[in-house]
Amino acid sequence: MKNDALRIDNLLVIGLGLIGGSLAMALRGRGFAGSFSAFNRSPSGIELALRSGIIDVAPASLEEAIAAADLIVIGVPTLAVEQVMEAIARHRRPGAVVTDVASVKGSVVEAARRVWGEVPAWLVPGHPIAGSEKSGVQAARVDLFERHRVILTPLAETAPAALELVDSMWRLTGAEVVHMGVLEHDRVLAMTSHLPHVLAFSLVDSLARQPASADIFRFAAGGFRDFTRIASSDVVMWRDIALANRDALLGAIDGFAHSLSGLREAIAASDGSRIQEVFEHARSAREIYLRWHEESDQQRSHTGAGE
Amino acid sequence: MKNDALRIDNLLVIGLGLIGGSLAMALRGRGFAGSFSAFNRSPSGIELALRSGIIDVAPASLEEAIAAADLIVIGVPTLAVEQVMEAIARHRRPGAVVTDVASVKGSVVEAARRVWGEVPAWLVPGHPIAGSEKSGVQAARVDLFERHRVILTPLAETAPAALELVDSMWRLTGAEVVHMGVLEHDRVLAMTSHLPHVLAFSLVDSLARQPASADIFRFAAGGFRDFTRIASSDVVMWRDIALANRDALLGAIDGFAHSLSGLREAIAASDGSRIQEVFEHARSAREIYLRWHEESDQQRSHTGAGE
Repeated sequence: MKNDALRIDNLLVIGLGLIGGSLAMALRGRGFAGSFSAFNRSPSGIELALRSGIIDVAPASLEEAIAAADLIVIGVPTLAVEQVMEAIARHRRPGAVVTDVASVKGSVVEAARRVWGEVPAWLVPGHPIAGSEKSGVQAARVDLFERHRVILTPLAETAPAALELVDSMWRLTGAEVVHMGVLEHDRVLAMTSHLPHVLAFSLVDSLARQPASADIFRFAAGGFRDFTRIASSDVVMWRDIALANRDALLGAIDGFAHSLSGLREAIAASDGSRIQEVFEHARSAREIYLRWHEESDQQRSHTGAGE
Repeated sequence: MKNDALRIDNLLVIGLGLIGGSLAMALRGRGFAGSFSAFNRSPSGIELALRSGIIDVAPASLEEAIAAADLIVIGVPTLAVEQVMEAIARHRRPGAVVTDVASVKGSVVEAARRVWGEVPAWLVPGHPIAGSEKSGVQAARVDLFERHRVILTPLAETAPAALELVDSMWRLTGAEVVHMGVLEHDRVLAMTSHLPHVLAFSLVDSLARQPASADIFRFAAGGFRDFTRIASSDVVMWRDIALANRDALLGAIDGFAHSLSGLREAIAASDGSRIQEVFEHARSAREIYLRWHEESDQQRSHTGAGE
């Protein structure tokens, strides 16, 4: 097992929200001894984070913050990443490593190419598969990443030392770090995360447009609450994800619409055995998925991997 | 407030599962002093319910069970209701009241018309809006109906005394009883319950058919688990619901598909403000729904209604 100490002096999060705040709490809780600073466009979250000891330093300007950092985590919404990269391009100190936490990786790589003409060796695109329908630093939790996966999508040009530094940062939070290609990441996340969010937002929107929608919601039960929980997610973050992962998301929507249309036909034709086949296939696939996650959780807690 | 004592001697559940088992536990816990019997086609659940004291009596035959009952709750899957009604038509004792718990009410009323040529005055169609992706009497809980709604859909021909008896049974469990028309019930439930189940089954089915579906499920996070929880629901029960509420469900699917297609167009056109508008509308509708349920819960616990 690798040594998971995080040997840097100044860690900076630009865009301190649920992810950045939880990262700070987790690293501190696991013995990170360096300085943790954060910069937001709006100061209120930063003040809260300073007062509650989540961060040590609130630099006066973004320029100053960047110039002092050894490791920079870009935590802003997906489509604001490029603007932050431009500031990094001007003020980054030599040797500093940069990573991000955006939910779409293709758009981050494209933004880097626009800013630097290439993807710099010290830039490690990343995405922690952890989150909540809650947002903001006030929702931060010390255990947000424990037993969760963090996907890094290094490119051929990524420096091994930069990748290892970002790896070790995430391992220190209790996460399991995996590496994946940029396109594969965006395709998989389109199906398991971006599509379900679009479906949940779309369902609640369409019910709310019905006549007598108050009555409709009044008789919605617990299953509906769970099913639509992700429709309470941050709107700007998810708008950006839909825009940034457009092509993979459109593919996922079309694949789903095709399945739904097949099931609709079976219902219209009162084809009970076809309906049952789809439901059974889904139910058993979900059982396998749950078992996989349970076994994987147990395995991690036995080996202590990621700790 | 009405007197909620349940003044009957013999209560029978035909088809003892999650709902019937929870009903037995709740009534017993709130002082129901009569005899509680149950009949299933397969004996294993009945034996468990007898051993654990959930029911008092396991009649040897359905005929015997029906002949002894003052109040009969039909708990079988929606499309098996008619067969049970035929046995009730042959063996019901005069004066006995019959209700059911099926998720679709139009098909129950149609089945009654086929069996009796009319909807008998002593038949009260009902539907507790409580449940779980778990099924079977082993999943029964004493508090399943507390702070949940039970919808009864009496017809013009329903006898007030029969309605009041079924009302009082459900009030004794801690549920809030509301009355609604058959068509309205089926339309509202199609949108808030049957459609979400179809979407969840359809999503998991379509992901499981992707190449490398194991990888897809491997990187699914907590939001996906919540979103697809209802895809672990009982397959036969939900197949029956889809068949029994076909027309309302097809309408709900079409309404949803129309909304999804509008959102797809906005994503394809990279129309960020249109995407944001849909997401915001959904998010605020869900907030209103949650507030409504919280306030309604508080109100019930203050007034003690349904207790």
